[in-house]
Amino acid sequence: MSAKKTIEEGLEFSPKFDEGGLITAIAQDAKTGQVLMVGCMNRAALDLTIQTGFATYFSRSRQKLWKKGEESGHFQKVQQLLVDCDQDCLILKVIVVAGQCHVGYQSCFYRALKKGSNKDLEFIAQKVYDPRKIYKT
Amino acid sequence: MSAKKTIEEGLEFSPKFDEGGLITAIAQDAKTGQVLMVGCMNRAALDLTIQTGFATYFSRSRQKLWKKGEESGHFQKVQQLLVDCDQDCLILKVIVVAGQCHVGYQSCFYRALKKGSNKDLEFIAQKVYDPRKIYKT
Repeated sequence: MSAKKTIEEGLEFSPKFDEGGLITAIAQDAKTGQVLMVGCMNRAALDLTIQTGFATYFSRSRQKLWKKGEESGHFQKVQQLLVDCDQDCLILKVIVVAGQCHVGYQSCFYRALKKGSNKDLEFIAQKVYDPRKIYKT
Repeated sequence: MSAKKTIEEGLEFSPKFDEGGLITAIAQDAKTGQVLMVGCMNRAALDLTIQTGFATYFSRSRQKLWKKGEESGHFQKVQQLLVDCDQDCLILKVIVVAGQCHVGYQSCFYRALKKGSNKDLEFIAQKVYDPRKIYKT
């Protein structure tokens, strides 16, 4: 098989990290299918996620590994890890018991573009917890 | 409101493109919730998507705008466009009538990491069309 075909049709997990050493990881609720958040992982974050069964990301803003929920308690238990055709993107099917967005919503995707507009958003969800009670810093 | 709060809690759509002028866009089946593919958009691709109602991406490998389905006929009709808290990632809720992955599957995410392994994948889907009959080049 060609290298491309091996990556696309083979069964060897060979995640492709970008020039910054990162890969996009989508957390999707394993029960509802709702996309909860999108983060990125470096090799160490991915290894920790696989080893521990809990999602660990790499924070670009803080430049450090970040176990989702380490501050809020809103962890992501990984049920399944999917990879796409060219192996440069991951989906984590996760079990969660609390809101996953630091703003207070279940999902980070709580706004949609209004029909007919290219600049106005509308809320499509309500907050499920008060972040002021969870994040002390 | 602070700039951060305006982005996170406001209703002005202000997508944040990265240093390469791109934003991640996830195509999710509007009916089933299945994540179909992940691509990226530049400003022109996003504008075309909003204007036409059909998903248009920017191909990094070909360095050009790419209307999904232009070769295969497997278009994505956009029903809703969601944005995340920091407005650096989009979800397109799309209506599709044919397989969305160029390898022949409904979704690009047709493989999962085997339980207990960190290197072996397993197929979790079957092909829904024969790409040799669709892609002539």
